[in-house]
Amino acid sequence: MIRVAINGYGNLGRGAEQAISKNDDMELVVVFTRRDPGSIATQGAPVAHVDDMSNWADKVDVCLNCGGSATDLAEQGPATVAFFNTVDSYDTHAKIPDYFASVDAAAKEVGHLALISTGWDPGLFSMLRVLGEAVLPDGATTTFWGPGVSQGHSDAIRRIPGVADARQYTLPVRETVDAVKAGDDVELTTRSMHRRDCYVVAEDGADLAFIEKEIVEMPNYFADYDTTVTFISAEEMAAKHAGIPHGGTVIRRGETSRGVAANVAFELGLGSNPEFTGSVVAATGRAVAKMAARGETGARTVFDVTLADLSAKDPADLRASYL
Amino acid sequence: MIRVAINGYGNLGRGAEQAISKNDDMELVVVFTRRDPGSIATQGAPVAHVDDMSNWADKVDVCLNCGGSATDLAEQGPATVAFFNTVDSYDTHAKIPDYFASVDAAAKEVGHLALISTGWDPGLFSMLRVLGEAVLPDGATTTFWGPGVSQGHSDAIRRIPGVADARQYTLPVRETVDAVKAGDDVELTTRSMHRRDCYVVAEDGADLAFIEKEIVEMPNYFADYDTTVTFISAEEMAAKHAGIPHGGTVIRRGETSRGVAANVAFELGLGSNPEFTGSVVAATGRAVAKMAARGETGARTVFDVTLADLSAKDPADLRASYL
Repeated sequence: MIRVAINGYGNLGRGAEQAISKNDDMELVVVFTRRDPGSIATQGAPVAHVDDMSNWADKVDVCLNCGGSATDLAEQGPATVAFFNTVDSYDTHAKIPDYFASVDAAAKEVGHLALISTGWDPGLFSMLRVLGEAVLPDGATTTFWGPGVSQGHSDAIRRIPGVADARQYTLPVRETVDAVKAGDDVELTTRSMHRRDCYVVAEDGADLAFIEKEIVEMPNYFADYDTTVTFISAEEMAAKHAGIPHGGTVIRRGETSRGVAANVAFELGLGSNPEFTGSVVAATGRAVAKMAARGETGARTVFDVTLADLSAKDPADLRASYL
Repeated sequence: MIRVAINGYGNLGRGAEQAISKNDDMELVVVFTRRDPGSIATQGAPVAHVDDMSNWADKVDVCLNCGGSATDLAEQGPATVAFFNTVDSYDTHAKIPDYFASVDAAAKEVGHLALISTGWDPGLFSMLRVLGEAVLPDGATTTFWGPGVSQGHSDAIRRIPGVADARQYTLPVRETVDAVKAGDDVELTTRSMHRRDCYVVAEDGADLAFIEKEIVEMPNYFADYDTTVTFISAEEMAAKHAGIPHGGTVIRRGETSRGVAANVAFELGLGSNPEFTGSVVAATGRAVAKMAARGETGARTVFDVTLADLSAKDPADLRASYL
């Protein structure tokens, strides 16, 4: 059994807890929190304060850092690798090389292994981008996101005066996705690739026309997109928009010879973004535990992991049944 | 530069040659053939007889075994690994464990590395099956093939009296693909998953009704499918059915928690089956060359390869631009 710790018990931490319960070769041995451990109710695992991590150093094969923000992870990464092999979903793309270097140094100093930036994007989508380019070097890669909830855009709407609650869905423009798959000549712009649907609960007596105008004209967030605004009741928001779905598509299209094209498309449709991210983090945790057991140290990414290590199956079983 | 040999110059070998020409870090140094080398016109690489392989042992980093049949590969595999690190697309699923064992023993004896059974199925589809199950252990995997040309089924039609030429397309049943993606309750049977479209050139005066009946009632090949037969002219066959397209879809659908589903779909659409297979074989050859340079020996499969090794890019570039 792979002994797993979860560090941080927000949406992602709870998603990872669900994922571990679905993997027979993994057991959740502790949840770390910055809050009062007595205030956290897990599905059964003990809860410890992050300051007590050192007491768990010999009892954990891999720690899944599930901090809720890039800021959390930037601190958690180098700190936790002092005690454990780690996995995280750090996703501030521009800072990944620096973060990799700092975690790599911290991990090597103590002989631990740390895999950064897993999940689905970065994560599975990154893997498929590299795979697509490796097999079709003469081509182009396009990524579409959604349909799914964007937390940042939902928050931006909630800051408008008169808005009680809001949920924003990012949607790929279906015609553009189809055109890219078909290799049709299509201009890929912000507006041609994605649109944004907003569901808003207004406060009593609020100026709906003002709210709508504030949304659709908001620079960066909405002005460059075709945006729809639908006002709904608080009850409808609770009934129909409580989930956190997401997804997307990575398309690699290239030529294998002059005029002969090939398409590789990878599509995710996720009922729950944090639960699926937790599932990928858990599978990556398995790989890290195996790699660390073989003596690997330092920082890694999903590009350094084999499928045999991600899988719970024996390599001979994989060869017999999955090729 | 990775120095590559191609063993066998049929459709797959020519596809691999195209692929190598699209990869700046690889050069084709020799093509091996069982035929008279003077009878082979490559795009520029020298041609040598397979009996002269030993003369090339120090000049090749990886040899791509492109035998046209499982029988060819079963011989080529253990034979060529005596001289080179190798890659092949061996696809007799039931015999893969035995083949792996024989190549593993032969490779270890001489300190070479051999990756077997790459391509798209086995190959990329195998990778996605393992990836899908690793991230969604509580679920089911479904594979659809096509639209694409099945050589075996085309040959079966050609053996019917009165048939001058034939081309058979395997097509996934779109409604069933959509139902699996949506998680709808759908029965997966031979007939519900795929259908078969046949284009036939009849000989002058042939009994068309007889041919059609022979096709649609043929056991194993067609009787269990919804099959259409269209008679066309030799000119239309040459004009519209000269390509060897193929493709398919691997769908993993599972639950991340009770009642919350996630979908992972991987879809290939290939203008040329042998060219795309050759592209995957070439990328896998790059990985084998890198792994062998690190001292790895024995047999491997796509489950043992990292994306960093499949890619032509530097690992730091991958982290900076692909995560």
